Amino acid sequence: MASIFSKIVKGEIPSYKVAEDEHFYAFLDISPLAKGHTLVIPKKETDYIFDIEDAEYELFWAFAKKVAKGIEKAMPCLRVSIAVLGLDVPHAHIHLVPLNSMSDFDFKKEKLKLSKEEFIEIADKINKAIEV
Amino acid sequence: MASIFSKIVKGEIPSYKVAEDEHFYAFLDISPLAKGHTLVIPKKETDYIFDIEDAEYELFWAFAKKVAKGIEKAMPCLRVSIAVLGLDVPHAHIHLVPLNSMSDFDFKKEKLKLSKEEFIEIADKINKAIEV
Repeated sequence: MASIFSKIVKGEIPSYKVAEDEHFYAFLDISPLAKGHTLVIPKKETDYIFDIEDAEYELFWAFAKKVAKGIEKAMPCLRVSIAVLGLDVPHAHIHLVPLNSMSDFDFKKEKLKLSKEEFIEIADKINKAIEV
Repeated sequence: MASIFSKIVKGEIPSYKVAEDEHFYAFLDISPLAKGHTLVIPKKETDYIFDIEDAEYELFWAFAKKVAKGIEKAMPCLRVSIAVLGLDVPHAHIHLVPLNSMSDFDFKKEKLKLSKEEFIEIADKINKAIEV
């Protein structure tokens, strides 16, 4: 069965897209730790990030860097942090979370609730800031 | 001034080394979230991971993958998770944390206290499991 993320890539489930290329897709986390919290995924479904073959794995991190640079420009933050937990959705995904303090990096804290308009505005802002 | 991690690389501060190559160094976090929690750093000091130039950045992630595969073999866990927070030591470092549940991934929880002997045993076990 296709993962929820594969359905997002195919457009069967809507998402706030931030960036896309031939192999990868980036979109806003709808339960964000901070405004601009983005998920980056490979279009080819692999459960565990360290099972992705070397060449694609390196391209994946290169793509994530481009997206992170865009987030950094678009959203006020000290750093864009990285997290890959790997125990929830069985489709490898990199969390990119803009941090303004260490306490922002807490996957147990209550997530932000944003309106559809806010998500669209943030996704658009990051998208425009990404250099491809 | 050299970062604490540069001093570790030079051997001026002791560490429980897990792996090393020409460009990168991996050692146990002495305040681990779980047994086998490892830090991977570039020998060349750069504060922010996304400021590392592309070729070295990709090699950095490739090296981290090798180390993660070793952790996975040496330490019983469901997954090796990844975190890069970037607001503490100003020398880019990738946390590799073996997870057995989502609650292991909590940088606010009390860290494990291990004896010197335990650290040495874990570092040695991971080192032997890494395929170079």
